[in-house]
Amino acid sequence: MHHPIPLSTLEARDAFLARHLGLSPAEQAEMLASLGVASLDELIAQTVPAGIRLAAPLAIAGPTPEQEALADLKAIAGKNVLKKSLIGMGYYGTHTPAVILRNVMENPGWYTAYTPYQAEIAQGRLEALLNWQQMIIDLTGLELANASLLDEATAAAEAMTMARRVSKSKSNVFFIDAACFPQTIDVVKTRAAYFGYELVIAPAAQAADHDAFGVLLQYPDVSGAVADHAALIAACKARGSCVAVATDLMALVLLKSPGEMGADIAFGSAQRFGVPMGFGGPHAAFFATREANSRSMAGRIIGVSKDARGKTALRMALQTREQHIRREKANSNICTSQVLLANMAGFYAVYHGPEGLRTIARRIHRLAKIFAAGLSEAGYALATDNFFDSFDIETGEDTAAVMQAALGAGYNLRPVSATRVGVSFDETHTRADLAELFSAFGVSADIDALDQAVSGTLLPGALLRTDAILTHPVFNTHHTEHEMLRYLKRLQNRDLALDHSMISLGSCTMKLNATSEMIPVTWPEFGAMHPFVPRDQAAGYLEMIEGLADYLRAVTGFPAICMQPNSGAQGEYAGLVAIRRYHASRGEAHRNICLIPKSAHGTNPATAQMCGLEVVVVACDDNGNVDVTDLKARIADHGSQLAALMITYPSTHGVFEEAVKEICALVHAAGGQVYMDGANLNAQVGLTSPATIGADVSHMNLHKTFCIPHGGGGPGMGPIGLAAHLAPFMADHVVAATGSAERPNAGQGAVSAAPFGSASILPISWMYIRMMGGSGLKLATETAILNANYVASQLKDDYPVLYMGSQGRVAHECILDIRPIKAATGISEVDIAKRLMDYGFHAPTMSFPVAGTIMVEPTESEDKGELDRFIAAMRAIRAEIRRVEAGELPADSNPLKHAPHTQSDVISSEWTRPYTRDEAVFPLPFVRENKFWPSVNRIDDVYGDRNLFCACVPMEDYAS
Amino acid sequence: MHHPIPLSTLEARDAFLARHLGLSPAEQAEMLASLGVASLDELIAQTVPAGIRLAAPLAIAGPTPEQEALADLKAIAGKNVLKKSLIGMGYYGTHTPAVILRNVMENPGWYTAYTPYQAEIAQGRLEALLNWQQMIIDLTGLELANASLLDEATAAAEAMTMARRVSKSKSNVFFIDAACFPQTIDVVKTRAAYFGYELVIAPAAQAADHDAFGVLLQYPDVSGAVADHAALIAACKARGSCVAVATDLMALVLLKSPGEMGADIAFGSAQRFGVPMGFGGPHAAFFATREANSRSMAGRIIGVSKDARGKTALRMALQTREQHIRREKANSNICTSQVLLANMAGFYAVYHGPEGLRTIARRIHRLAKIFAAGLSEAGYALATDNFFDSFDIETGEDTAAVMQAALGAGYNLRPVSATRVGVSFDETHTRADLAELFSAFGVSADIDALDQAVSGTLLPGALLRTDAILTHPVFNTHHTEHEMLRYLKRLQNRDLALDHSMISLGSCTMKLNATSEMIPVTWPEFGAMHPFVPRDQAAGYLEMIEGLADYLRAVTGFPAICMQPNSGAQGEYAGLVAIRRYHASRGEAHRNICLIPKSAHGTNPATAQMCGLEVVVVACDDNGNVDVTDLKARIADHGSQLAALMITYPSTHGVFEEAVKEICALVHAAGGQVYMDGANLNAQVGLTSPATIGADVSHMNLHKTFCIPHGGGGPGMGPIGLAAHLAPFMADHVVAATGSAERPNAGQGAVSAAPFGSASILPISWMYIRMMGGSGLKLATETAILNANYVASQLKDDYPVLYMGSQGRVAHECILDIRPIKAATGISEVDIAKRLMDYGFHAPTMSFPVAGTIMVEPTESEDKGELDRFIAAMRAIRAEIRRVEAGELPADSNPLKHAPHTQSDVISSEWTRPYTRDEAVFPLPFVRENKFWPSVNRIDDVYGDRNLFCACVPMEDYAS
Repeated sequence: MHHPIPLSTLEARDAFLARHLGLSPAEQAEMLASLGVASLDELIAQTVPAGIRLAAPLAIAGPTPEQEALADLKAIAGKNVLKKSLIGMGYYGTHTPAVILRNVMENPGWYTAYTPYQAEIAQGRLEALLNWQQMIIDLTGLELANASLLDEATAAAEAMTMARRVSKSKSNVFFIDAACFPQTIDVVKTRAAYFGYELVIAPAAQAADHDAFGVLLQYPDVSGAVADHAALIAACKARGSCVAVATDLMALVLLKSPGEMGADIAFGSAQRFGVPMGFGGPHAAFFATREANSRSMAGRIIGVSKDARGKTALRMALQTREQHIRREKANSNICTSQVLLANMAGFYAVYHGPEGLRTIARRIHRLAKIFAAGLSEAGYALATDNFFDSFDIETGEDTAAVMQAALGAGYNLRPVSATRVGVSFDETHTRADLAELFSAFGVSADIDALDQAVSGTLLPGALLRTDAILTHPVFNTHHTEHEMLRYLKRLQNRDLALDHSMISLGSCTMKLNATSEMIPVTWPEFGAMHPFVPRDQAAGYLEMIEGLADYLRAVTGFPAICMQPNSGAQGEYAGLVAIRRYHASRGEAHRNICLIPKSAHGTNPATAQMCGLEVVVVACDDNGNVDVTDLKARIADHGSQLAALMITYPSTHGVFEEAVKEICALVHAAGGQVYMDGANLNAQVGLTSPATIGADVSHMNLHKTFCIPHGGGGPGMGPIGLAAHLAPFMADHVVAATGSAERPNAGQGAVSAAPFGSASILPISWMYIRMMGGSGLKLATETAILNANYVASQLKDDYPVLYMGSQGRVAHECILDIRPIKAATGISEVDIAKRLMDYGFHAPTMSFPVAGTIMVEPTESEDKGELDRFIAAMRAIRAEIRRVEAGELPADSNPLKHAPHTQSDVISSEWTRPYTRDEAVFPLPFVRENKFWPSVNRIDDVYGDRNLFCACVPMEDYAS
Repeated sequence: MHHPIPLSTLEARDAFLARHLGLSPAEQAEMLASLGVASLDELIAQTVPAGIRLAAPLAIAGPTPEQEALADLKAIAGKNVLKKSLIGMGYYGTHTPAVILRNVMENPGWYTAYTPYQAEIAQGRLEALLNWQQMIIDLTGLELANASLLDEATAAAEAMTMARRVSKSKSNVFFIDAACFPQTIDVVKTRAAYFGYELVIAPAAQAADHDAFGVLLQYPDVSGAVADHAALIAACKARGSCVAVATDLMALVLLKSPGEMGADIAFGSAQRFGVPMGFGGPHAAFFATREANSRSMAGRIIGVSKDARGKTALRMALQTREQHIRREKANSNICTSQVLLANMAGFYAVYHGPEGLRTIARRIHRLAKIFAAGLSEAGYALATDNFFDSFDIETGEDTAAVMQAALGAGYNLRPVSATRVGVSFDETHTRADLAELFSAFGVSADIDALDQAVSGTLLPGALLRTDAILTHPVFNTHHTEHEMLRYLKRLQNRDLALDHSMISLGSCTMKLNATSEMIPVTWPEFGAMHPFVPRDQAAGYLEMIEGLADYLRAVTGFPAICMQPNSGAQGEYAGLVAIRRYHASRGEAHRNICLIPKSAHGTNPATAQMCGLEVVVVACDDNGNVDVTDLKARIADHGSQLAALMITYPSTHGVFEEAVKEICALVHAAGGQVYMDGANLNAQVGLTSPATIGADVSHMNLHKTFCIPHGGGGPGMGPIGLAAHLAPFMADHVVAATGSAERPNAGQGAVSAAPFGSASILPISWMYIRMMGGSGLKLATETAILNANYVASQLKDDYPVLYMGSQGRVAHECILDIRPIKAATGISEVDIAKRLMDYGFHAPTMSFPVAGTIMVEPTESEDKGELDRFIAAMRAIRAEIRRVEAGELPADSNPLKHAPHTQSDVISSEWTRPYTRDEAVFPLPFVRENKFWPSVNRIDDVYGDRNLFCACVPMEDYAS
């Protein structure tokens, strides 16, 4: 091993480091020598400015062996007390089908995949997402669905802003049904404040009484009530309102769809389709609308197109319309989705099929009906008339006693008021639960008799749906476990993930997602907990979260951590909201200028815009650094209006800028706050920190720096760290407290549906940090920097490295300039990306932050063998390009322009290309032994966007 | 759903049935109609003789929903009390590397694979097994290793019989070191009894004092003692003894190898290389010997050969020498191995590498040394001088108190005698454990001081090994988790398993291995338990085992169940042993004739032979049934000598014989016992039973009928059911009691190392039966019969169905006759098997029980879509054969003779075949969408057997 603690110690406590870090001591030495440095310390000294280096080692104990860390976490998890939930409010017990649990959620083939930008090697999860979209279209009765949003509450906020875009009303009012989930209303409130919308929160029946650009209804509502809103929606639309309906997929299996009622938008959570509650997330939110609104909908959409051979092929549609392109015109900053969870929910529908889902939904409804009938017979008044799975009960002065009795029997009811409780049934409840619950209510009931009595008395016919759902063959084929297993594997085999090869995505940090980090995620202690349980039941969760917060405090140098944001962009939003609240608290609400360097991630200006800030761009100099002179000028321009600077460090150009401390000081001197984008935190950990550099608040991408896998395009997790003066302004939660007595954040509005965001994946980062320890984390950062410099150094003769630091070093990633090649040959960065697929590699990041470049981030988790294979591939591609330059291969018919190559290309009698079949698909020896086959040829994006089709295609199309 | 209990009931308790069974109601109806029957009942009535039908439904409750069954089993598992083990004796705590746990042990790509007879689609696990063999060769210092045996004790028995084969000594004596593990001695005793060997059990030092054909030593021995046996071995060999050494892989990482000491054989358990203890199994036993003995070694050997293109390719070597061919000449009946566990152990070495293993071994040794030093300092006398990880301590009159104190602190020590205890350290022990243990011994020790004091005082240099181990690149490459993950996936992708398509192996019953059945196997409650813990700690295990036994009682009709045999062949052996003991108890030990029908599995005569029985073959008639006239004649011949009849039912010809009850009665009338081979129990469950038919004892293949996956060639599990009169004669265990007070089997010798065989996989069968319930099990049998009859009916025009029952029905499998095709075209069943690979299917069973045929068993778990794809493939192959018959394709160059086709075949500029590339590899449309690629061309078995090479090949050979 190549780190300070010898493995030969009695306890071998650092064995995990050798698993996470790619380099053996010999490899490390060889690579350092090739860079002309004597040690890792020397390389780091040449790379990271001395002025920002940490004075002391990270105060994080460890390393800790894998098994010991797992045992520690298991003990913590054991402090959670699992009760059966009847709380509802958007979170329900569910059975994750075991075949999906093991072969998707616990399978690195699914969870380590990246966002499917490289669609030719992502057809598996793209098909799964198309299934999801079809399922949402069918159940909501609308025409178009996206590939998921972060959670139901932020989906509501997206519905509000979309309503603003599509409504022709001049009104500034957004109407909210008071019977929406309280956490939804809370997030919409936060979001509306900075857009300046006026909220009217009132009973649904009053929706048409207001001149509003948008209306939000909930169906079924928080009390479980189901009503046909068709007339109300028509009236709202007549007034020019765009009508969005928050709804529930399981209810929609039986109930008339929002689309049929005339809604413009329907959204909600798909959690109960097989995704564990996980103390609040991650889950996939769904979002559907009318075809006419397709270009106004936030989030990713999977669409059908054709490949170069005319075969049906899937890819993300309308990518040019993504929010990070919209920049300062954006009213959403979402740039991710919940792919893993959306796919699980889609597979749940594939596995159960329409009949299976109806069986489940009818069972749930019957349980609720039986319980309601029993309570009614016993004299309880129900506060909900028509319902699917949830209703409220008048418990009067017995309320506390009933709650307590239920708790004692092992059940959490929904506390509604001092005289009322609510219950929500789900597929995990049984006849035995009914008996226990009747007992808790002091009712002696004959369940079979009640079952007889209520059978046939479903909801009024007018409330039931009559249209066919899920008629596509995919929902009617894979109902045995064997066929489901094979379908999952067939899709998985089409996708290139980290279990095949390195994915060197600059800025996305596709490092190892170690199995020991993933194991706790599917422990029932973490999975089966509702986010709104009484806090004492969640002692294990709270201890784990606080432990992780302590780690993140050490890493960032900030005293306060807010775990609520469930994506990096959400973290940016939460951070800027805290800055705005802080300024306002000091009577400086007028500060509305946000400085953003030209090289910034697209989410930065989008987020600033969402917080009501005006974006002012700061120039970069020729070396890619922030132009300090320009910065001073911009500060001078806006002086007392300056709210914040948003900065990424090391810069998106892959360099540790020397002037960063000065930059922060200049902003502070003008009364502004510094927001640090955490995208590149992987290059800081243990060497410097946002607080050391001078930032006031920063988000952390736990899915980049701290090993949460990308899941094929989500989940992510973006907690923020805040300086003490900003801590009082971090997000809170209206239903469940997020703070301990010491946490001063009570009373602030929320940014996400769940109090701690996607709590159930936090164990991944907890385990990572626990196993690495402070010394291991620092070594990881140093190794990532070494690997990036090695790749840059090995490739610089073939591809110019665009930016370097003052001593010729890159940070943890490097930008390779493809523009000269394109100018000379017409071969673009896209051609190189597609050609890399033929070599078995996923392309690095393309054209960010500079068009016509690729950005390579090898991370610390690759060994030299894999780095060298990637380098060999890149060099071989350069040699192919030289053959085009030399005129040996035509500019329009060469291995790059035809890439990627499929089996159909090379297994055919006809072959007319000016290169051989072997050159096409086995261009280097190592490829032959481990060939990854792209399942389609290059995809025609333009065709797909011009012929937008975002639902499942007929099966015949696949076979063609 | 197509079964009696509608899914629309309140509780949908039978949902699992729809997952396990392949047919939807519509499919079932369509298939019944195609067979010309109106109902499943009608089909079954035409298939199963009325005289053997069960009078009443199976007395098994259920069905039970998956989640509820899992919860029930979790509650039972929770009754196990996990203490840290220092018991040793062949079972040690180990850390299964998480990447191996999740991606091998919990991965259907590995665990659902079949035995690698079809080597071209099994190169992944064959490479893994070659790694295993190389590891065993390196560590034992011998030249040749097999691919694993069942457990250490049966490996000792195999060593004994092999010694008999290779020794030139005329002696009938086998010498056993008294310091061998007691369970090893016990199994060898059982085995020796029926071979008639005389055992001498004495201290190792006396080994050369006897004229013995074989000598068995243990190194390190049961007390942990390590001694250089080189001189002793030389002396034994000088007397003509073949010397076998039971040994420990972890010790061998540091210690001089048995090979270096001159041993002829070395064997032991690889459990501590990453395989959970699991209350005794399954684990892989290893077995190595000298090159000269290669053809005398039992078990499978993986060998290197070449494929049709001259590329290195792996396959099972010397298959013609397998025991089931040896039949009545056999002195072993082993016909399986422990592939999944051997591969896990091999991967453990791949992942750790030689340096990592040394680190682990040195740590273990240091822990032991420190503990020994501390005890010595405190005045305890040690009973072991030189040791690696284990030693005995003189505890005198404090023995009980020390044991109790350790127990109270959470540790199980090894009870040696009234005045002595033993300890064995392993990689899971830590410094904290030392502190606790010192406390339990009443010792106050300074661990760091002791560590200093003992450092450098390793074992005497003469006992240490000096040769290099694990120098092959495969053990020095995959040390990061990313690279290990990718290596595992690369190998997995080369193997066709049930996660790709149906594997219709007649007699092997490759049914669904449902995820919910597999989940409990890796619960720590089941994994981390030593088989010899005090019984009260194993309450959960014992309850689960007794619950499963109750289920098996209901299925077989037998009152007694013995869970010890850890393979089907072991079950046969245990059953015949019980019969022999029964006869002996009645003064009829002379009964030594075993009647076996001609069609029997090869293990039957081998097993009879091992029990000292003389095999007399009974003829079959033209319909494949036992020839009752011949049977009567054979009985008349042997009368009072008749010990038993061994019979498979339904017959291996795939037919329910009408005369089976008469056959049993004839045997009983002559004083014989009926042993029923359980291979085809899948066709009996719920319809009839061994007891109903008239058998006295029968084994059950839990890995066929009751869903334990085949693991790529093991583990299996073969418990037996016995009639009341045989129950007193079932196997017992010398260390750990297997019986409750009610179980009358105390005092009988063992057949396997562990009291309950491979206990940790019993939850699979428990879950299966629990989820299916009695009604579901019966429906499964009926569905299996329907599927087999459907396939037979669809294929009979292309391939004659060889045997059918009196009403034209097959049982659960059907034999297709290929001999006419071979006669006409030269195309054989092997060509068809290889060609099926090109269609994405694993071949059915070949040439068993009739040469020149294939036997198809679709099982109940395939849906009609998959059955129809298989039928389409078989028909398309028949059409290809017709083109050969018609002279359109040459007899020596056609898609069958060149099958299987690889990427190298079709992706090459040259193509000179008389059929197209597409016809070669995409012969039907469904193949293109889900292509499985054989990774090598047809393998040359003869070349491999002539040039036997059974270790890892140089990496260059793979690349060639």
